[in-house]
Amino acid sequence: MRNILVIGAGKSTGVLINYLLSKASEEKLHITLGDLNKDQAQELLGANAHSTAIALDVFNAEERYAAIDNADMVISMLPARFHIEAARDCVKLGKNLVTASYVSPEMQDLDAYVREKGLIFMNEIGVDPGIDHMSAMQVIDRIKSENGKMLLFESFTGGLVAPEHDDNLWKYKFTWNPRNVVVAGQGGAAKFIQEKKYKYIPYHRLFRRTEFLDVEGYGRFEAYANRNSLKYREAYGLEDINTLYRGTMRRPGFSKAWNMFVQLGMTDDTYALEDSENMSYRDFVNSFLPYSPTDSVELKMRHELRIDQDDIMWEKLEELDLFNPQKKTGLKNTTPAQFLQKILEDSWTLKKGEKDMIVMYHKFGYELDGKRKQIDSTMVCLGDGDRETAMAKTVGLPVGMAALRILNREFTEPGVQIPLSENVYGPILKELEEYGIRFRESEVTYTGYNTLSL
Amino acid sequence: MRNILVIGAGKSTGVLINYLLSKASEEKLHITLGDLNKDQAQELLGANAHSTAIALDVFNAEERYAAIDNADMVISMLPARFHIEAARDCVKLGKNLVTASYVSPEMQDLDAYVREKGLIFMNEIGVDPGIDHMSAMQVIDRIKSENGKMLLFESFTGGLVAPEHDDNLWKYKFTWNPRNVVVAGQGGAAKFIQEKKYKYIPYHRLFRRTEFLDVEGYGRFEAYANRNSLKYREAYGLEDINTLYRGTMRRPGFSKAWNMFVQLGMTDDTYALEDSENMSYRDFVNSFLPYSPTDSVELKMRHELRIDQDDIMWEKLEELDLFNPQKKTGLKNTTPAQFLQKILEDSWTLKKGEKDMIVMYHKFGYELDGKRKQIDSTMVCLGDGDRETAMAKTVGLPVGMAALRILNREFTEPGVQIPLSENVYGPILKELEEYGIRFRESEVTYTGYNTLSL
Repeated sequence: MRNILVIGAGKSTGVLINYLLSKASEEKLHITLGDLNKDQAQELLGANAHSTAIALDVFNAEERYAAIDNADMVISMLPARFHIEAARDCVKLGKNLVTASYVSPEMQDLDAYVREKGLIFMNEIGVDPGIDHMSAMQVIDRIKSENGKMLLFESFTGGLVAPEHDDNLWKYKFTWNPRNVVVAGQGGAAKFIQEKKYKYIPYHRLFRRTEFLDVEGYGRFEAYANRNSLKYREAYGLEDINTLYRGTMRRPGFSKAWNMFVQLGMTDDTYALEDSENMSYRDFVNSFLPYSPTDSVELKMRHELRIDQDDIMWEKLEELDLFNPQKKTGLKNTTPAQFLQKILEDSWTLKKGEKDMIVMYHKFGYELDGKRKQIDSTMVCLGDGDRETAMAKTVGLPVGMAALRILNREFTEPGVQIPLSENVYGPILKELEEYGIRFRESEVTYTGYNTLSL
Repeated sequence: MRNILVIGAGKSTGVLINYLLSKASEEKLHITLGDLNKDQAQELLGANAHSTAIALDVFNAEERYAAIDNADMVISMLPARFHIEAARDCVKLGKNLVTASYVSPEMQDLDAYVREKGLIFMNEIGVDPGIDHMSAMQVIDRIKSENGKMLLFESFTGGLVAPEHDDNLWKYKFTWNPRNVVVAGQGGAAKFIQEKKYKYIPYHRLFRRTEFLDVEGYGRFEAYANRNSLKYREAYGLEDINTLYRGTMRRPGFSKAWNMFVQLGMTDDTYALEDSENMSYRDFVNSFLPYSPTDSVELKMRHELRIDQDDIMWEKLEELDLFNPQKKTGLKNTTPAQFLQKILEDSWTLKKGEKDMIVMYHKFGYELDGKRKQIDSTMVCLGDGDRETAMAKTVGLPVGMAALRILNREFTEPGVQIPLSENVYGPILKELEEYGIRFRESEVTYTGYNTLSL
């Protein structure tokens, strides 16, 4: 029996647990699921003989150390900032580790120790980051192996509501952490490179510089730029690429409407509103508009945004009940972003039975034998219900697949790493197809930017 | 002989030194001016028998301690962040201190020690902060003493170029630290209260929510909101006021044009531009505009800003030579704000002989005997040349006047303080009038916001 310790019984742990339990007999696994809330862990595990639920406080050093000592490998499904203590124990105790989170500087600092002990700390192996890395590298490596020269790489991911439940004017519902959606794009200008020119978009312009993407069978999407598109330039081996752009996908019209909140300052998360607990939704809106003894909040708002009352943008605001003078959040010392999140949660929370969707779109532009070519690659994953959401599947499955392969010594390169090498992404992408997570590739006309000069 | 140690031979020290030397015989003063650059200190002092220039590194603890020990009182004209070491020595050695800077938390922490030793640490006694505090409190105290109830206080200050040298399209030149102008308003939403309603303006909207102010003899100005108008609500005794607003004055049209830079992201100071040393002014502009293989930077810029080529806004950009493909800053790892500052310094640096101007405008709305009334109070100070700038006069003179009065024990209240009490602002405002720094008051119709409901 090999004991896998999974820490954290959160949203995407269910799919991971199901995957591991489905392999338990064949692979001789025992799954220990630790969470602050032992009942929640037990509920996820069900009555499966190959599993044990334990109460585990990751900040209790003794508890944590004992649980890790008892395991053959560790998967941390906690929020990113909570991995590091478990990671340090894994180094001490010589255990391999898998997470779906970005490599933090503290995690990276463990690299030398991890290598010295011959361990594998696999990170960024969820959906984004994760499946995006693997599916991109598979095509990039193939193009390079055929002596193609990469010219352009654009990559987009979106977590959205499935078409069958896409029934509000925004064409959006929260399928993951609402807070991340409200503050998306903040903290610096978006940075990317187009035809060797560096480009910068400040936050307050981000949602007005979008592009359209069509996915066969799913219609049209739009995308706005992620903050740092250049982050993986070296890791992907694209040092000389002309164009590198990463973005977030929404349904068309979302960004233009979201921009209303950005323009008014409603997404600001840096200061607390005065007397926020007594503010109505209407007061909240009014606090970003000039004072007037006579004009209505509605008229001031339309004037400030320069929109008419029959504009669809206006209907989107009304759909959120934004001008309600009775409704309050009741939250003290809340930031504008937190207040807005509460308003949006009234309208955008998935109801029981409603399904989500993950969409991914890559464009690979390259030169081969003097000709410019392009491959577009798309993936759509639909949720199967409240537990088997698309987000949980696309995060939980690759994590489980990586963990099992590390346990079986199919991955051998030690170190703190992300899934960029063929012997990692190859088998995982192949197995993901069995679960319906597959990319569709098509050769299209090169859509780089200097086509006129060809 | 009483020895006054002045630390820092910067821009406004000249006027301060002249003031103190003019009082030296009569008041039996000896002025020691310490600066890293002793020659610069000597040049400011000239050949005056009542003075000594010394080389002084404020970070050299022994040097600093000895100089302060040797003085009867200390004036620090250094940038705000450098006061604290001198202040701590002043506590140890029992010396009074004057600065023109905002009270830092570290400075405030010294208050108990300062009081215990019966010392006076007078801060915020330049122009803004300084003359604004004193001139406002004088009127507020008078209104209160007549049993008036304060309803509204708005206060505006601007450092501008004198009308005779106001000869560019922006009607603006740098008369103080250019960096502060480029990043003005950043770091959080502007916050104020209007008719008991809290209002918030995000940075990217700040320069579009201006108001006009007319100053007799000097024409029209505009003002945009300062970051935190509520900062002095308690200190001024205005806890129950309906409207409190502080702002920065410019000539009309400046803010709307400045907003172009803000919208494009050119004032961002949080990240470094790639390859900035090789960027031309034109490349800089282009980095904030979408890529195009065919369209000019000019057309993209006009489209992005939604302006025509015959718009005065466009002429303002051309006046700065913003589209020059040859000119470079040569600065490495520079932020957009630093790059923009360089471009602006080409055009907005005061030439030898050009004069500056300080303008201040207060509005005091109040209720007296059931009637709403308003007093407007304005001050204009013009520079008299390269050394006697308006900025140097309005900072240096009140500092000197306060120092002399502390030395002569005319001020007696101990502690870390700012000039809000009548026995401080009274004599200083009176003496400032001898130097042409005087406020003109006029009773005007109450311009509060709820006039329609009266």
